[in-house]
Amino acid sequence: MKIKTGTDYMDSLRQLNPLIYYMGKKIKNVVTHPATAPHVRAAAMTYSIAGQDEYKHLAEATSHLTGNSISRFTHIHQNMEDLIKKVKLLRLLGQKTGTCFQRCVGFDGINAVYSTTYEIDKKYGTSYMERFTKWLIRIQDENLMVVGAMTDPKGDRSKGPAEQKDPDQYVHIVERREDGIVIRGAKLHMTGAVNSHEILIMPTTAMDSASRDYAFICSIPIDAPGITMIFGRQANDSRRDLKETIDVGKPSFGIVGGEAVIAFENVFVPWENVYMDGETDFTGMVVHRFAAHHRANYGACKSGLMDVLTGAVTYLAQIQGSARGSHVRDKITEMIHLSETLYSSSIACSAEGTPTPSGAYMVDTMLANVCKHNVTRFHFEVARLAVDLAGGFIATLPSEHDLYNEEIGHLVKKYFSGVDSIPVEDRIKIGRLIEAMTGGTAMVESMHGAGSPQAQRIMIFREGDLNRKMQFAKALAGIPQRDK
Amino acid sequence: MKIKTGTDYMDSLRQLNPLIYYMGKKIKNVVTHPATAPHVRAAAMTYSIAGQDEYKHLAEATSHLTGNSISRFTHIHQNMEDLIKKVKLLRLLGQKTGTCFQRCVGFDGINAVYSTTYEIDKKYGTSYMERFTKWLIRIQDENLMVVGAMTDPKGDRSKGPAEQKDPDQYVHIVERREDGIVIRGAKLHMTGAVNSHEILIMPTTAMDSASRDYAFICSIPIDAPGITMIFGRQANDSRRDLKETIDVGKPSFGIVGGEAVIAFENVFVPWENVYMDGETDFTGMVVHRFAAHHRANYGACKSGLMDVLTGAVTYLAQIQGSARGSHVRDKITEMIHLSETLYSSSIACSAEGTPTPSGAYMVDTMLANVCKHNVTRFHFEVARLAVDLAGGFIATLPSEHDLYNEEIGHLVKKYFSGVDSIPVEDRIKIGRLIEAMTGGTAMVESMHGAGSPQAQRIMIFREGDLNRKMQFAKALAGIPQRDK
Amino acid sequence: MKIKTGTDYMDSLRQLNPLIYYMGKKIKNVVTHPATAPHVRAAAMTYSIAGQDEYKHLAEATSHLTGNSISRFTHIHQNMEDLIKKVKLLRLLGQKTGTCFQRCVGFDGINAVYSTTYEIDKKYGTSYMERFTKWLIRIQDENLMVVGAMTDPKGDRSKGPAEQKDPDQYVHIVERREDGIVIRGAKLHMTGAVNSHEILIMPTTAMDSASRDYAFICSIPIDAPGITMIFGRQANDSRRDLKETIDVGKPSFGIVGGEAVIAFENVFVPWENVYMDGETDFTGMVVHRFAAHHRANYGACKSGLMDVLTGAVTYLAQIQGSARGSHVRDKITEMIHLSETLYSSSIACSAEGTPTPSGAYMVDTMLANVCKHNVTRFHFEVARLAVDLAGGFIATLPSEHDLYNEEIGHLVKKYFSGVDSIPVEDRIKIGRLIEAMTGGTAMVESMHGAGSPQAQRIMIFREGDLNRKMQFAKALAGIPQRDK
Amino acid sequence: MKIKTGTDYMDSLRQLNPLIYYMGKKIKNVVTHPATAPHVRAAAMTYSIAGQDEYKHLAEATSHLTGNSISRFTHIHQNMEDLIKKVKLLRLLGQKTGTCFQRCVGFDGINAVYSTTYEIDKKYGTSYMERFTKWLIRIQDENLMVVGAMTDPKGDRSKGPAEQKDPDQYVHIVERREDGIVIRGAKLHMTGAVNSHEILIMPTTAMDSASRDYAFICSIPIDAPGITMIFGRQANDSRRDLKETIDVGKPSFGIVGGEAVIAFENVFVPWENVYMDGETDFTGMVVHRFAAHHRANYGACKSGLMDVLTGAVTYLAQIQGSARGSHVRDKITEMIHLSETLYSSSIACSAEGTPTPSGAYMVDTMLANVCKHNVTRFHFEVARLAVDLAGGFIATLPSEHDLYNEEIGHLVKKYFSGVDSIPVEDRIKIGRLIEAMTGGTAMVESMHGAGSPQAQRIMIFREGDLNRKMQFAKALAGIPQRDK
Repeated sequence: MKIKTGTDYMDSLRQLNPLIYYMGKKIKNVVTHPATAPHVRAAAMTYSIAGQDEYKHLAEATSHLTGNSISRFTHIHQNMEDLIKKVKLLRLLGQKTGTCFQRCVGFDGINAVYSTTYEIDKKYGTSYMERFTKWLIRIQDENLMVVGAMTDPKGDRSKGPAEQKDPDQYVHIVERREDGIVIRGAKLHMTGAVNSHEILIMPTTAMDSASRDYAFICSIPIDAPGITMIFGRQANDSRRDLKETIDVGKPSFGIVGGEAVIAFENVFVPWENVYMDGETDFTGMVVHRFAAHHRANYGACKSGLMDVLTGAVTYLAQIQGSARGSHVRDKITEMIHLSETLYSSSIACSAEGTPTPSGAYMVDTMLANVCKHNVTRFHFEVARLAVDLAGGFIATLPSEHDLYNEEIGHLVKKYFSGVDSIPVEDRIKIGRLIEAMTGGTAMVESMHGAGSPQAQRIMIFREGDLNRKMQFAKALAGIPQRDK
Repeated sequence: MKIKTGTDYMDSLRQLNPLIYYMGKKIKNVVTHPATAPHVRAAAMTYSIAGQDEYKHLAEATSHLTGNSISRFTHIHQNMEDLIKKVKLLRLLGQKTGTCFQRCVGFDGINAVYSTTYEIDKKYGTSYMERFTKWLIRIQDENLMVVGAMTDPKGDRSKGPAEQKDPDQYVHIVERREDGIVIRGAKLHMTGAVNSHEILIMPTTAMDSASRDYAFICSIPIDAPGITMIFGRQANDSRRDLKETIDVGKPSFGIVGGEAVIAFENVFVPWENVYMDGETDFTGMVVHRFAAHHRANYGACKSGLMDVLTGAVTYLAQIQGSARGSHVRDKITEMIHLSETLYSSSIACSAEGTPTPSGAYMVDTMLANVCKHNVTRFHFEVARLAVDLAGGFIATLPSEHDLYNEEIGHLVKKYFSGVDSIPVEDRIKIGRLIEAMTGGTAMVESMHGAGSPQAQRIMIFREGDLNRKMQFAKALAGIPQRDK
Repeated sequence: MKIKTGTDYMDSLRQLNPLIYYMGKKIKNVVTHPATAPHVRAAAMTYSIAGQDEYKHLAEATSHLTGNSISRFTHIHQNMEDLIKKVKLLRLLGQKTGTCFQRCVGFDGINAVYSTTYEIDKKYGTSYMERFTKWLIRIQDENLMVVGAMTDPKGDRSKGPAEQKDPDQYVHIVERREDGIVIRGAKLHMTGAVNSHEILIMPTTAMDSASRDYAFICSIPIDAPGITMIFGRQANDSRRDLKETIDVGKPSFGIVGGEAVIAFENVFVPWENVYMDGETDFTGMVVHRFAAHHRANYGACKSGLMDVLTGAVTYLAQIQGSARGSHVRDKITEMIHLSETLYSSSIACSAEGTPTPSGAYMVDTMLANVCKHNVTRFHFEVARLAVDLAGGFIATLPSEHDLYNEEIGHLVKKYFSGVDSIPVEDRIKIGRLIEAMTGGTAMVESMHGAGSPQAQRIMIFREGDLNRKMQFAKALAGIPQRDK
Repeated sequence: MKIKTGTDYMDSLRQLNPLIYYMGKKIKNVVTHPATAPHVRAAAMTYSIAGQDEYKHLAEATSHLTGNSISRFTHIHQNMEDLIKKVKLLRLLGQKTGTCFQRCVGFDGINAVYSTTYEIDKKYGTSYMERFTKWLIRIQDENLMVVGAMTDPKGDRSKGPAEQKDPDQYVHIVERREDGIVIRGAKLHMTGAVNSHEILIMPTTAMDSASRDYAFICSIPIDAPGITMIFGRQANDSRRDLKETIDVGKPSFGIVGGEAVIAFENVFVPWENVYMDGETDFTGMVVHRFAAHHRANYGACKSGLMDVLTGAVTYLAQIQGSARGSHVRDKITEMIHLSETLYSSSIACSAEGTPTPSGAYMVDTMLANVCKHNVTRFHFEVARLAVDLAGGFIATLPSEHDLYNEEIGHLVKKYFSGVDSIPVEDRIKIGRLIEAMTGGTAMVESMHGAGSPQAQRIMIFREGDLNRKMQFAKALAGIPQRDK
């Protein structure tokens, strides 16, 4: 049955029985547990937005597999317009949630695996694509949420998968049975995992032939036997867990996506859900495509977040009576400038998109990497500017419990008020929103989500086509083009 | 007769008789005079590139006015694809010339005036567009080079056009005659002026009704009576003027576009070439559109220049035996990253282009401003990195006259050689190329061409839609939306 | 009785009865309450360090008033060496506590008030210095902790003290009685207030003659009648309040200094503790001197904090097996470079210190402002680099409750381990330390403590001596020096 | 006979007969040749400044060898005050000349060699210090200018001195004779070489025992037989060589120091002027000390240059009527901020100076490297800001020949004028000054003089004391200090 609304989505989660730990205890119901509920609500927005007429053209697409109208988050990009609509959809959702809404990672995984299986099949005569398409049609028809699972623990970074002392530092096949495979290991930092329906497991890096058992792709339900999830801590998570309504900053939505460890302890996957098995020469391709799609997104959702931050400091400056200051306007200008620079690259890598052999569209890899790389700088600078404009009070504000305390509430109200016409609560709420969006976890995610900065630099150097650039320089300097 | 090749272009210039001064003397022939020849050659590349099959799809377009195949530089953008092809053409020409090829300014002027005349006519029932289209068809059919003339001297910056002590600080109409207008004033920093065929004069800023005589648009041949041009100095111009072949860095092409003052001393313009006359309420529009188009281009041509610089330092590192250094690779990566970031915005503002009422396409203004604004930062940083990688020798290199001197040439050769397999001349030539592309005039142009940084910041703030952003923030912070 | 050790200090706090609220409840004992205890321990370090032989030469000084050996934190700087020793002491304490140890603000207040009272007395024949010296000798002899109280709420920033609708937005004298004054208002962001012995109240800004009642200086015990303190929230304060030992990051010390609102509701101050009363022409001086001293300190304590962060990422890289990566070393180099740049300005403004008329030494104002201004940039960049090097796990780590959970603890241990030889707890602890030192409150303090960035820019511009700089330029350009 | 004035200095140069080439021709008289005269004048300022009473305390010192009053540029630093006075002297000379005055390199060489010879003698029982002191007393008594010669050509950077195909890529001893040594090779980028009296040759890098013949120190007169100098090109050198008075920017002084190649073709040096011969284990020391002293200076002279630039743009803003613009003031503030940050490190590394075993004072190495490293960033940013504030006209200005041309001079005057009260020549002169100080050679020198950026980063990492920093982090995170 297709999930059509946010409520449908929450209902669907109640049907599942994933094993989740948090703070040393089990989470029974992710929809109602205060630690996970805000993240569920953010993901739910990806469902509910499709019900709004003005956004339907962004949020929905027509499946090239079935011709059905489906959620864009389950769609295989068919052309440049699809890529650009995705960017606009992500920025919109960033503006509406002020956080990670978690569905990109599965979306990008689907697109990376789809085009890769096509090419594996071409080379090896396998039928991975058929299997994958069958699964994907179900995802599209039921509008399921998929967590794309890529990042392994990696143990000692100076060693590869097959060289680790503990082989489980990378997820691997421990047994190939007649009916399927058995896997062991873990995936870390899994955004949206606890409130997804399915996991799509992919290799974490390009591998050589020594790592055959590590080179596989498969999908599996989130509550399959042998799967344990441990939900991670975030900045100020107790404000969320205690359901504080002001101090939490964003009462409805989480800080970032709600990340979890997914541990696989001898988990069985039937062959029909295995989409790569040992073709190590294609590990690079799927990683590369997943990474490019994912990096492309960061200029979209994060510019949406920066729109929120920019709006927050603008309103706060009005409250505090400083909105006309030239340095205030200049810093707001800089915030806009930086977020639009990020957005540029998301749009540009989409506009320069090209078809893969499967027909699925890929973003331009160089520009997608450039996009994410700027996020690892500009989001920090935008946050720094927001902190500058907010003023020191976001670090020293009394709690909402003091605000509403009978003895001293009047003092908090009195001494945190701004211009006469705006309620003191507005100032405090906006301050808490800025606090929530500029500190800790939120920033770390921008740094490392979709790959750490050095991963992008390696790609940028590799795709820089330096030979061609040297030809230009030599020609202009009057240097003859010699052999070699 | 249509100009089809670089040679045709040079021949066409020989037919003109503009009055040009440089270093206190008249320049008779811009094609052969050493001060102007390199700039003529760069502009000629915009003609000759169309003759190469692999580039024709970028360099040519189909006129929506005549259906003829025309140079893209005379085309009115009809769709997003036109805007993107323009970007690719400009980057290519940047790579091929390593400098400004000068035709954008007229190209952008044509596009800005075209769509503006349409809207003036709609409002006032004038027939400027008919006049302009007639002129434009000639430009397209003959493939003429047009200098878009916008920047006035401005005198005391704290005062507007009509408040200046000397009224000529902004070009203005001094007489309206039956057959046309008489104008006086000057335009500064006119790129490519001395080797253009026509001037397209536009107002330099949005004006109010006190400035009617300053609010006009017209075109005029470069050698019309009353026009005097003074060609400006550039960094190391003597190396160019003395036709040095190594020390000049780029023996074929100039440092930037070859800028001139154009002074108008009571110059007559017939009515058929007047496309605005006193409609001050449209001055903002034409300036805004010209600026947006022009700013959009800077991420294209400058990324082409940065490709050259990146290639130059890469080759130099090979010559010097330092190409494997991790910090060398890291800095090259950064150069690529920055240039691709600029390119992103050029592509993005094109991909987000929209039609004006006339049907002509406009780039996205926000992203175009963001594009140019980043140029004013990143080109400097790329140059700084190139200087870092080049090494100190580009500041202390003996001259080519020493290199070829009988007594000491052997010392220069001996002590400036690098790895064994590459001739010392290559190192010196690449060093001089980097010197030419990173110092002085080249950088100033990136700062101020298409508007100084503050001009972009004003636009970015203005187009930032802060009310909408505040709505997002309030919604997320749980602040009720009150009546404004 | 003189406080000699950290334990003495804690004992002394137990003698006081300040009225403190936090999270809607009263704090009875700041020494033991988990919310304040870590901050008390950091302040205690300023006492205990003096007992260590190797640090005594930094931590102690000889009072110019009594000749006694006193804590440097109660000393009036007598020469350049005093200023430099202070810098070294602050960096050391930053390294030892990784946080704010809170005593600078009183230290700087004492120095600012001392020299200012001297000059008021000279001009007006008052005897403020005598009063102040008497009080100061007690502070020195008993080694008391003083909170320097400067920042008022300010209400509507577009208006001055006397123009606010609510006069209490700036602390002011509401009554002058025979035996003293009665004051009302509040001071915000008061570092270390809840665990100080005395408050030294100073005006928040330069004032004109309309603001006489706002222009006063006085001291008062922390538990005087009418004083209410509200202790502010900080990032991840629940981890501290619940006494978590790993997840808190720094189990012994707080995030920053522990800031509080201090509200004065008709508080009486006897004349002997009033050190300015209405001399508005000296408000600028005391603010200026306090700000300069305080800004000078930031390059010292913060470089100490950055030393900790640099050590943390270095160790983490060793644990993760990535310490030999060239980009890792390069980022560590950058962290060192930035912190030493900050330290430079602290040392430099001390080395360029000069005596005031009172004999007390002042730091160089320009360099002190430059110092703090760089903190508002570099601390953020150092944190960004630390986050980069730490990796994404600091945003997604399971809690210590999961680490020690019987069912899943083994999974946390297994999948967060690094190289073989180092315990997994080390990795988790270092990750939590980095998390604590790079997110939220810690960064906001660096931005706004000792004045927001714009405050420094105003001073830098004002002290830039542009006339002299113009003379240099004119002389070199060959421009005759004309009158004016 | 002691040189006491600038004129004395110029007279002394006329007594020498160095072999100098420039632009393929010999320079006979460096005092009058237009290519070298401006550099001679800048160096002369180091002599004449000592004759001005207000600067004498900075410009002179008392020799610890003879007790005589000597030029500070020949002094061995005896204490921290000497180091600080040097910094103030260098900034002053930067303000007065707007360029490099060239004497630091010998000054730093003298200080590095002095303390190193002391330590060689201690270890090996040699008598280098006695020889060196004898020479130094002559330098002090006659007040001679010494060029410190360190940088070798280096050929293939991936190979060391002894591995080069051409052994002359590093200066080396080709023969040890009874009366002295014979050397061959070259030194590049030799600032002030053509107008110095003596050369002090030092090794360019730390060397191992395979490089004994490369590990030597000696001094030699500039016009010794076998020495050939080739004077390098600079940005816009023709404006200098043609004695243009406006377009050159700084009519009296050069762009940078006037650098030359010094080639040694079998040059004889008597033993009494040899101060190291094969003690490879001390090569690192002399390089390290020279580099540290030299890097310390850059925050002094360059902040002097930035003072000039800041004054120039301030005056230009006044001329152009834009001085009140908030963004103009903000950029000027930033220029001041950056230059004072540099100055901080020069002061700080001096204030933290320590004695070597010889008694000569060394700057703090870490802070000296930090100082120079920031120069390689901030000087570029200051130049960028100056270019921003100057406006585009510095890239397109007509020549002074046009300004004074009879036909068109009136147009140049008319259209480059600013506010009414200031002559147009002022605007043009200031524009040319900014052009001269922000482009090309001037910036390259800031990048590579005293060592390229990577050289500083290596030192900063090496001196970062990471073990100690890791101890701090472990202690705070609650990690037990284990063995190792």
